[in-house]
Amino acid sequence: MPVDKLYLVLGGARSGKSRHAESLIEACPPPWRYIATAEPLDEEMRRRIAAHKARRGNGWHTVEAPRDLASALDDCPDGTPVLVDCLTLWLSNLMLNGRPVETAVDGLLEALERRRGPTVLVSNEVGLGIVPDNRLARDFRDAAGSLHAKVAARAEHVHFMVAGIPSIVKGTG
Amino acid sequence: MPVDKLYLVLGGARSGKSRHAESLIEACPPPWRYIATAEPLDEEMRRRIAAHKARRGNGWHTVEAPRDLASALDDCPDGTPVLVDCLTLWLSNLMLNGRPVETAVDGLLEALERRRGPTVLVSNEVGLGIVPDNRLARDFRDAAGSLHAKVAARAEHVHFMVAGIPSIVKGTG
Amino acid sequence: MPVDKLYLVLGGARSGKSRHAESLIEACPPPWRYIATAEPLDEEMRRRIAAHKARRGNGWHTVEAPRDLASALDDCPDGTPVLVDCLTLWLSNLMLNGRPVETAVDGLLEALERRRGPTVLVSNEVGLGIVPDNRLARDFRDAAGSLHAKVAARAEHVHFMVAGIPSIVKGTG
Repeated sequence: MPVDKLYLVLGGARSGKSRHAESLIEACPPPWRYIATAEPLDEEMRRRIAAHKARRGNGWHTVEAPRDLASALDDCPDGTPVLVDCLTLWLSNLMLNGRPVETAVDGLLEALERRRGPTVLVSNEVGLGIVPDNRLARDFRDAAGSLHAKVAARAEHVHFMVAGIPSIVKGTG
Repeated sequence: MPVDKLYLVLGGARSGKSRHAESLIEACPPPWRYIATAEPLDEEMRRRIAAHKARRGNGWHTVEAPRDLASALDDCPDGTPVLVDCLTLWLSNLMLNGRPVETAVDGLLEALERRRGPTVLVSNEVGLGIVPDNRLARDFRDAAGSLHAKVAARAEHVHFMVAGIPSIVKGTG
Repeated sequence: MPVDKLYLVLGGARSGKSRHAESLIEACPPPWRYIATAEPLDEEMRRRIAAHKARRGNGWHTVEAPRDLASALDDCPDGTPVLVDCLTLWLSNLMLNGRPVETAVDGLLEALERRRGPTVLVSNEVGLGIVPDNRLARDFRDAAGSLHAKVAARAEHVHFMVAGIPSIVKGTG
């Protein structure tokens, strides 16, 4: 993977997004930075985080950034490959805490502009089902769609995962 | 874009469908016809319609056709590029008003056969989430899937939007 | 279609999965084996099964395997083309009956290893909508995602249906 490139890896539940993103990063020399946006608020979430962490081997340095993602990106040394897993959890944390989403998204985009080094962003595609009944879910779905389009416009590579296999939506394989 | 061609632009929530469809139409010389199927029944819908309208510039003539889409297509002058936004809202309006869906879909397909001029149909892909609990949502999801397959079979071009980027499902870029 | 090949046909509701899978099988000489995983527990399901059956013509031999899919695959004669429709219904039957999913999935993968003859597996992509509120739906969505990735890793061909049109995710057209 060439340096200074931004990847967006999108996909559904258990579509192999994290695994694929890790393989993109691990094609670069270590050390690698992992920015986890999950907040282990319940047992189910704790289990998922532990399973993800167990899969990653040596060479990874993990930091947690459930809300201040832009700062976490700014803290990464130039040239260090960074994986952010995942944008939808970050967005969900912002919305559940009443943070202004547009400001945070602008801040993220600016931090991505400042970044020097390979960066892979993982996110869940959530907008291809039936329109949800409840307003918060609808707002979240819309915010995720807008965020993905904004990030994809700046990314050199967009991969859409289907059954563990990346399809190239933008850029080259 | 060559004339006399039918495009179907499918995608999830905020995936850039409308924007992409507009760019396809605006590659043709104006004036352009915009057929809006939305009924501004509540505040959220009114806001979305206004935002869409504000984005479209001069050169667009908007007509509203929440139910009689075939007639609205027949009323378009030969050669005038037409954008229909969107089929899922139209389908939803039919179902909520108890109109027979199959008859309406057949009518739409016949109107598309009669059309002379570039036509871009926008629609929401809603069938890739978990099966909904309630019957109406399930029927809607099925009807949308069938409608998309029927329209896609007749279209020269089918684009599937992922994060604001069109993937070519049928035809050429 | 070359023999001894495994196809996975994924897609949303009414996306033309079954029809496409049948066309893949019918490109081989008959007789063809159809393994139905649906259990006709209610009227809606009975209607869907009848509609699918009516579409298939002569040359098809149908067996039902709502749970013991591995055995049903083992019972297929070498060289006979087999269509399994569909994996998500099978998974749902297992979960609703409290069967251990991982064991069943391992059993399926082993049966696929033993298979001699063209095999087409149909399944619903259900992981691209909003995260469901209820736990069972979330577990099902995760289990389906994992199953698809495991099967896709072994398949020579993975097709993703959009509006009745197959997109090639893995393999060649």
